[in-house]
Amino acid sequence: MLIESFQNEKIKNITKLLTDNRFRKKTGVFVVEGQQENERAQKYSFEVLEFFVCENIFTGKLPQEKIHYVSEKVYEKIAYRGSSEGIIGIYKAKETHLDSYQPKENSTIIIVEGVEKPGNLGAILRSCEAFGIDALIVTDAKADFYNPNVIRSSVGCLFGMDVFQSDNQETLDFLKNNRFNIYTTIMDETSEDLYKRDFTKKSAILFGTEHSGLSDFWSGKGKNTLIPMSGSIDSLNLSNAVAITCYEALKQKKN
Amino acid sequence: MLIESFQNEKIKNITKLLTDNRFRKKTGVFVVEGQQENERAQKYSFEVLEFFVCENIFTGKLPQEKIHYVSEKVYEKIAYRGSSEGIIGIYKAKETHLDSYQPKENSTIIIVEGVEKPGNLGAILRSCEAFGIDALIVTDAKADFYNPNVIRSSVGCLFGMDVFQSDNQETLDFLKNNRFNIYTTIMDETSEDLYKRDFTKKSAILFGTEHSGLSDFWSGKGKNTLIPMSGSIDSLNLSNAVAITCYEALKQKKN
Repeated sequence: MLIESFQNEKIKNITKLLTDNRFRKKTGVFVVEGQQENERAQKYSFEVLEFFVCENIFTGKLPQEKIHYVSEKVYEKIAYRGSSEGIIGIYKAKETHLDSYQPKENSTIIIVEGVEKPGNLGAILRSCEAFGIDALIVTDAKADFYNPNVIRSSVGCLFGMDVFQSDNQETLDFLKNNRFNIYTTIMDETSEDLYKRDFTKKSAILFGTEHSGLSDFWSGKGKNTLIPMSGSIDSLNLSNAVAITCYEALKQKKN
Repeated sequence: MLIESFQNEKIKNITKLLTDNRFRKKTGVFVVEGQQENERAQKYSFEVLEFFVCENIFTGKLPQEKIHYVSEKVYEKIAYRGSSEGIIGIYKAKETHLDSYQPKENSTIIIVEGVEKPGNLGAILRSCEAFGIDALIVTDAKADFYNPNVIRSSVGCLFGMDVFQSDNQETLDFLKNNRFNIYTTIMDETSEDLYKRDFTKKSAILFGTEHSGLSDFWSGKGKNTLIPMSGSIDSLNLSNAVAITCYEALKQKKN
């Protein structure tokens, strides 16, 4: 049966999942748009509940019993990219807890405090995945991982990563219990250039918000580390700063 | 006199400058919003024509004879950020031509082909400035430098940089005439890792679009170079790739 009405309960449900953070949390369910993104969600064992497919656009294969077909008009309403690949999947969220995570011996972990923009968080996930970072912890986050903008700008990289939402104290306890070397991106007279730090050992690198940097909580908790710059501007776009750090860590491990 | 009407000719003119690429080009004039951005435009000798100031918000000092005061409502209409610092400046664009540019001996230049998103171009400008890149050339661009989103996401870094719009052939001629080492971000069996390339000598590093990479024009024109990655995703966000390259170049020059 083809769904052609915006008033269909399933369609209304998708719209709510896309826009309502609390509803996502309450139901433990989220939406994935696009072929590559859906492939990645399935590859990394996220449980799919339903697919919504626009036949005129989608060309792939899917388990028949989970498919609902929707008209182009309905698809356009629930899709962010009108031109996206004609597939939207509904998945069960995975609950992850930092206290049950066992990092491996030479792990590199990125920690971002208070990230606000979903697009930034998505780009950070993409860099972490590309450079083999072992986990991403977000503390005091305003954006949640299952926000559709996060999934989209991560190109589905969210699904293959170990990701955790936490608070500062729990994160610090985790780092201490697991004997991480802690590097804080704070500028003072003790700060060393990024490439002088040793990321071949168990390392956690912390970033604050673009606007105000790391909060006072992290002051004195790690070795202060800076990305060397030479221009007249003294800060980078957050996702660029994280990408550079991931690159440096991988490079050290390769050499 | 306080401007309170959206119908005021000057206000209509600003709206047109913000949204109409061709009108910006025809008039040779562009709009700068925000305190830091206006300071940078003036610092780098852009000629200011007029300021539009919302008195309830703006707290800085400006040459009195160039100021028009606007009501909060009017300011909100012409400002992208309602909460921005209450200042908008109108400036004369600078005409720059690649054929009259004299690069210095160990210049590092970034070249981006066909960049589409103004936000990406702005973030690239910010990284170039932060890491002391000598010039940015954009070939076959869909976004122009004076687009308000470019200025905003560059945090005004546009103004302190040597920037050029060009086409591929003119850019190649320039690089050859000035004896640049050309590095192309193309993946094949000859590609070397970024950090194995020598950026302490005159270097130009070229990036294509996120979607399809460098066009065939650049095939065989330079040494193929790749940012090493280790994850299951094989591409980076464009501005992240440029930021990593700028960092690597600066690091080599510092050591």
